Amino acid sequence: MPAAVVLVSGGLDSATVLALAREQGYDAFALSVDYGQRHRAELAAAERVARALGAREHRTVRIDLAAFSGSALTDAAIDVPTGGVTAGVIPVTYVPARNTVFLALALAYAEVRGAEAIFFGANAVDYSGYPDCRPEYLRAFEALAHLATRAGVEGRGLRLVAPIIAMSKAEIVREGARLGIDYAITVSCYQADDTGRACGACDACRLRRAGFEAAGLRDPTRYA
Amino acid sequence: MPAAVVLVSGGLDSATVLALAREQGYDAFALSVDYGQRHRAELAAAERVARALGAREHRTVRIDLAAFSGSALTDAAIDVPTGGVTAGVIPVTYVPARNTVFLALALAYAEVRGAEAIFFGANAVDYSGYPDCRPEYLRAFEALAHLATRAGVEGRGLRLVAPIIAMSKAEIVREGARLGIDYAITVSCYQADDTGRACGACDACRLRRAGFEAAGLRDPTRYA
Repeated sequence: MPAAVVLVSGGLDSATVLALAREQGYDAFALSVDYGQRHRAELAAAERVARALGAREHRTVRIDLAAFSGSALTDAAIDVPTGGVTAGVIPVTYVPARNTVFLALALAYAEVRGAEAIFFGANAVDYSGYPDCRPEYLRAFEALAHLATRAGVEGRGLRLVAPIIAMSKAEIVREGARLGIDYAITVSCYQADDTGRACGACDACRLRRAGFEAAGLRDPTRYA
Repeated sequence: MPAAVVLVSGGLDSATVLALAREQGYDAFALSVDYGQRHRAELAAAERVARALGAREHRTVRIDLAAFSGSALTDAAIDVPTGGVTAGVIPVTYVPARNTVFLALALAYAEVRGAEAIFFGANAVDYSGYPDCRPEYLRAFEALAHLATRAGVEGRGLRLVAPIIAMSKAEIVREGARLGIDYAITVSCYQADDTGRACGACDACRLRRAGFEAAGLRDPTRYA
């Protein structure tokens, strides 16, 4: 069974991506990053998701991106916005170079485990304000990965797979329902409480709730 | 004065790169990465180098790359080789995706500080066995950086500068002598002791010593 590294945040999107990687026959190595995010309940959710969806192992790498500050997700002095997403504007919840850092760590893990692919839950529909969620960014990272690694030098490839990049939240939720995912174990909220209950007001909560509504599915999220 | 992030390891190469960035008129933000390396004396040397060469600030980001294992530089079970470098072979001292991780962190720091450039001491001459030291790799990372960031989206550029990539160790040492660098404060050894004294036997020590000899300069390294 070929190996794949799957970035798992504990949220709905990456849980769906992990289930898709498993469905495609990959032995999944789940990777989470503790980057000083406010929403600590995410990391507990990531552990639950990795176990529930059959990852072979789950590693959490701790890295202090908060040392650089600059984002509402890591800087307690910046409020999490609740006013909705504006097209074409990079939200303050953007963490500088976060996806580049995450993918670099996934690349390291992929090299050590001899993985053929990295699965990543980037989405260009609901989060189009983040530059590092765009398809052209992901293609550039894949090109970099080929040049960066033993696998590339030795002629083996490393695919970067972003299976939900073009899906709406409703489509992702429907895909998850098809795969039998219990989304109650996931946490998307930017400011979930310690037990994983969501605020219901932040952008992540609004997008998630709207996704279940548009899909015509019951929202199993535990709200505070 | 334009800002630049400079990756500073504490070694001879990156000290030279920091001095070159300062000479080119950059306000330098020095970045070191504590990635679980054996040679802890490096990090103390990085602090000395940043201060001595006039960096505006110095940040050390801690990240547990040793969690992935796989390299002699982070895995205590793998011996540091002392038999010299073989052309075309990736040495066991290669840390998986290390430069990609370092550059990703530099990119995050550059975004937060509004830096126009990242200075990086990659070298394709003495370390040609490392895939992520090649010029084509660095060009791919620069392309990625343009797509990854606010600066790229907003039309400002971010240059990746590798000023010593084509220099031999002797040329680097001569450049440092011209810039007045006291290399006694730097540590290159893969297994330096806690006070920064070098073993004199590992590949890094051999290359460094040979560089001073070829340059016809006194080697100020403190050997154990």
